[in-house]
Amino acid sequence: MDERSALRRLAAALPAAGDDAAIVDGVVVTTDMLHETTDFPAGTTRYTAGWRAIGASLSDVAAMGAEATAAVAAYAAPSLVETELDDFLAGAKAVCTAVGAEYVGGDLDTGTEFTVASTALGETDEPVRRSGAKPGDVVCVTGRLGRTAAGLRAFEAGDVERGNDLFRFPPRVAAGRALAPHATAMMDSSDGLARSLHQLAAASEVGFDVVWSDVPVHSAVDDYATDATDRRELATAVGEDFELVCTLPPAAVAAAREAVPVSLSVVGDVTANGVRMDGEPLADEGYTHE
Amino acid sequence: MDERSALRRLAAALPAAGDDAAIVDGVVVTTDMLHETTDFPAGTTRYTAGWRAIGASLSDVAAMGAEATAAVAAYAAPSLVETELDDFLAGAKAVCTAVGAEYVGGDLDTGTEFTVASTALGETDEPVRRSGAKPGDVVCVTGRLGRTAAGLRAFEAGDVERGNDLFRFPPRVAAGRALAPHATAMMDSSDGLARSLHQLAAASEVGFDVVWSDVPVHSAVDDYATDATDRRELATAVGEDFELVCTLPPAAVAAAREAVPVSLSVVGDVTANGVRMDGEPLADEGYTHE
Repeated sequence: MDERSALRRLAAALPAAGDDAAIVDGVVVTTDMLHETTDFPAGTTRYTAGWRAIGASLSDVAAMGAEATAAVAAYAAPSLVETELDDFLAGAKAVCTAVGAEYVGGDLDTGTEFTVASTALGETDEPVRRSGAKPGDVVCVTGRLGRTAAGLRAFEAGDVERGNDLFRFPPRVAAGRALAPHATAMMDSSDGLARSLHQLAAASEVGFDVVWSDVPVHSAVDDYATDATDRRELATAVGEDFELVCTLPPAAVAAAREAVPVSLSVVGDVTANGVRMDGEPLADEGYTHE
Repeated sequence: MDERSALRRLAAALPAAGDDAAIVDGVVVTTDMLHETTDFPAGTTRYTAGWRAIGASLSDVAAMGAEATAAVAAYAAPSLVETELDDFLAGAKAVCTAVGAEYVGGDLDTGTEFTVASTALGETDEPVRRSGAKPGDVVCVTGRLGRTAAGLRAFEAGDVERGNDLFRFPPRVAAGRALAPHATAMMDSSDGLARSLHQLAAASEVGFDVVWSDVPVHSAVDDYATDATDRRELATAVGEDFELVCTLPPAAVAAAREAVPVSLSVVGDVTANGVRMDGEPLADEGYTHE
């Protein structure tokens, strides 16, 4: 069973699951586990790991259109090294500060592999789900895509400083709050644009027609892409960018753009069915842990 | 740096840490990570693992005197096996149901070792901290101690069914709620009675005089203890029992006993300083992951 099948099983077993985060009495809660071998390339600093692990959970809070209030983490490593722990905590606190949340501690343990489980909390009375997109809406993304894909290439190329810089993404909490009154559906792009569109399509029972030339590509992608095909892959299929993908009624785009503190790009239209890019079926491919 | 030094460092860096759980705007949050090699002896079922991992976090909510509202878990294993995942979810949901909380999903991942990171949420307007014990109070424990120590011996002896049964402890959420109006300080006994007393002593700046013959010992301990010294070790130093250790003004004991749905044993007195059992210094020893 791969992770996607397992997640479907989990979602089926738990009515509250299947969105970016669960909501209990207005409290948003989401948890993620990251591992050194799959999530932190060689050269990732503990500061970056703390930022990125907590940031991934804060991104799920953002995707619900919620305010982020707090985060905790459980940290395990083969040995607990004081400087590493201090760096991790500094990164965890910095990303919380960046979105107005409070880092309130966690658990420490030894384990065979460096592993971080992060949990973020948020608050909202009107969460934005994945299931509200309607044909006639447009689909938008915040920021630019491919940042993590470029970061992975930077680490591969031995450019550790740039890799770390690209890996410390800004969670889009303020953008999610600003989009919440307008968006009909929203999620984060943690599995890549292509897979996010398929997930929104399934949850909302709609389709998408996306225009590749309208997809905003992160400038770092151009430094590492080997050709046009590779560039498109990096921007749409690698994922872990933690930008927001949302649908809006066309009439709401101007007001949403005004309210959102980052760029908001219209990349296509919501249709009755099928997920297409430039008229061709867009494969449901992205980042899957096997 | 062992786990205790690391936790002290974490507590010093984070004002909100250092208790059983953090509190943000009345929401109690706590997270724990458990690993196969250190926390789940061979023979532990995934049902038991789900119960125990979530139960450990619910116990931290109980130790704050809070209502338990929800729990999530991140689950990692070398391969995601459908029956194992189903069993884990069933155990996680059962322990939530047992304390009136809702299991609301989580994250799945592959990793080199079976690992569970659990997070529990609760609500309280008046949390019970570790820092309120006063000389003249008495110190009490819920239930009986040594259940996990006996469970470990059961697994060692190959009595897997009994080991699993002993490992599925009942989190003391209802007891914690009932004790909250009376207790001056409270924590759970996850590190063993001896270490819990030292932690309460440090947080409250007090001491304890405990009477060994008043310590309630779990009946299973007698099935596995090799002699009287071993019996005392199993009951006081192994820990992971997740009972509550609290201090009460003597005048409140009768009302607390009336309100608490499990047994409540007075095991000693709060003093000005020093942690003693039967007049002898009680070593600050217990369960420490190295």
